[in-house]
Amino acid sequence: MTDAIKNILIDYHALIELPIQWGDMDSANHVNNVMYARYSESARIAYLERLEKEKPLNFSNDVGPILAELNILYKIPLSYPDVVYLGTKVIALPDEYSYIMETLIVSKKYEKIACKATARMVSYDYNKKQKAPTPEWMRIKIEETEKRLF
Amino acid sequence: MTDAIKNILIDYHALIELPIQWGDMDSANHVNNVMYARYSESARIAYLERLEKEKPLNFSNDVGPILAELNILYKIPLSYPDVVYLGTKVIALPDEYSYIMETLIVSKKYEKIACKATARMVSYDYNKKQKAPTPEWMRIKIEETEKRLF
Amino acid sequence: MTDAIKNILIDYHALIELPIQWGDMDSANHVNNVMYARYSESARIAYLERLEKEKPLNFSNDVGPILAELNILYKIPLSYPDVVYLGTKVIALPDEYSYIMETLIVSKKYEKIACKATARMVSYDYNKKQKAPTPEWMRIKIEETEKRLF
Amino acid sequence: MTDAIKNILIDYHALIELPIQWGDMDSANHVNNVMYARYSESARIAYLERLEKEKPLNFSNDVGPILAELNILYKIPLSYPDVVYLGTKVIALPDEYSYIMETLIVSKKYEKIACKATARMVSYDYNKKQKAPTPEWMRIKIEETEKRLF
Repeated sequence: MTDAIKNILIDYHALIELPIQWGDMDSANHVNNVMYARYSESARIAYLERLEKEKPLNFSNDVGPILAELNILYKIPLSYPDVVYLGTKVIALPDEYSYIMETLIVSKKYEKIACKATARMVSYDYNKKQKAPTPEWMRIKIEETEKRLF
Repeated sequence: MTDAIKNILIDYHALIELPIQWGDMDSANHVNNVMYARYSESARIAYLERLEKEKPLNFSNDVGPILAELNILYKIPLSYPDVVYLGTKVIALPDEYSYIMETLIVSKKYEKIACKATARMVSYDYNKKQKAPTPEWMRIKIEETEKRLF
Repeated sequence: MTDAIKNILIDYHALIELPIQWGDMDSANHVNNVMYARYSESARIAYLERLEKEKPLNFSNDVGPILAELNILYKIPLSYPDVVYLGTKVIALPDEYSYIMETLIVSKKYEKIACKATARMVSYDYNKKQKAPTPEWMRIKIEETEKRLF
Repeated sequence: MTDAIKNILIDYHALIELPIQWGDMDSANHVNNVMYARYSESARIAYLERLEKEKPLNFSNDVGPILAELNILYKIPLSYPDVVYLGTKVIALPDEYSYIMETLIVSKKYEKIACKATARMVSYDYNKKQKAPTPEWMRIKIEETEKRLF
């Protein structure tokens, strides 16, 4: 990761690196818009796992994250071959159930932000099948992680 | 399509029907969030083709659509087996380069809106590699199609 | 489904119809080779569900199917727009653990076989985490379904 | 890459490394069978690019590769998180039009072969829309690369 890319991602966490696959492109010869959603999903999961000490998330028990809204701002068309670097931060905790995650997708080739994806996450009780307060330990971890912001 | 679903989609155009595939689900046992982006892409293309009299779009020549921003509002988790009905309308032409497409994804099983996807499209000149005014014929066709709105 | 297509699929079961999505194509402007694997998965699941009286398969309990080997023979390049019809039959039960499923992918546009996918399935005990004899009821149902063959 | 993995891939070329994404898994909680086809496609393209001195392939001109048959042998179920290492070799040139590529998918977590994918490639003239002899330079490069085999 070059210094230029490190600077772009300086306030973001749980950085991951994904090689663009040839098959991620569509017949317009660019990475298909849908793949940006896939990449950003991988980045959000990396962030959430970091909160949980790198354990894979368990979606079948108790309270877990659910995606309520996703906004993808496409800035640069990506294409194969390239590598994307992704970092995520929580930019807001608007209420006791929700948190807003922002992910940057940075192109290695262009050393620029290719995409910003913003996800409104809601904590969800998979047993009761309804939204639930974000667990205390998770809110504390998020606030520690994002101490510059809160 | 039942009357309930027809009513939901009454102001939407270029209706398509997609069977949910088992492989569209992820390990949380619901249709993966990324697939809603794929489904809505198919619906936008159906709308654009309808403008073009059902001809497949040609992305390699002249002026074509580019996706600048996508917003996906997840309302109901979908799962296999189900069928989704999609309809699209243009809800705004904010400037001479852009148009906003709104797609509803309606579940056959629940007879409810599962997702609303809103796409900001920009007309793009693939030869000059820059944004371009939306072609006149296309603006006229959109206004005809959406005559209730404009 | 035209008579020509019905004739192609006459010995196949659990027919399904899938619209090709624009996003199924890759930058070579044809349906990406990977999507044929997805389509054939959907067809195999339709067949297995038919054995189970249309109930969705439950992969978390007891004995279920696992894919041991997949062979895909590409005959015609597909492209959007088109619709594919798929049918599946079990062509062999080589031992008490295994069964071979053959799926045809037929193009509506060409009225021809676009692809033949052959899958070697193994029955697997998800609790014991090892292969298991194919359940008796399932072998009987397969033999009833494929009575022309056995 | 550990020594164990290097040994597995010792006769394979154009090694690539792909992180498994969470979204590559299906509702059976393993990497979906279709993704193995995607991974192996990426490995074949890396091999073909290496022949072409790392230039991205140009599918729109002249003679290029087309996939005629793909065989996937699933050995170990993969799951997230893991990384796969892939290497490819050409194992046969059965006639002047065809070459057989074998790709291994090796799990970092298990240090074992998770999958072997074998692809029968046919050289195809995209202008004349028919199969064509594999270009001389390409046959020579393949023979140089696979000198242990030929």
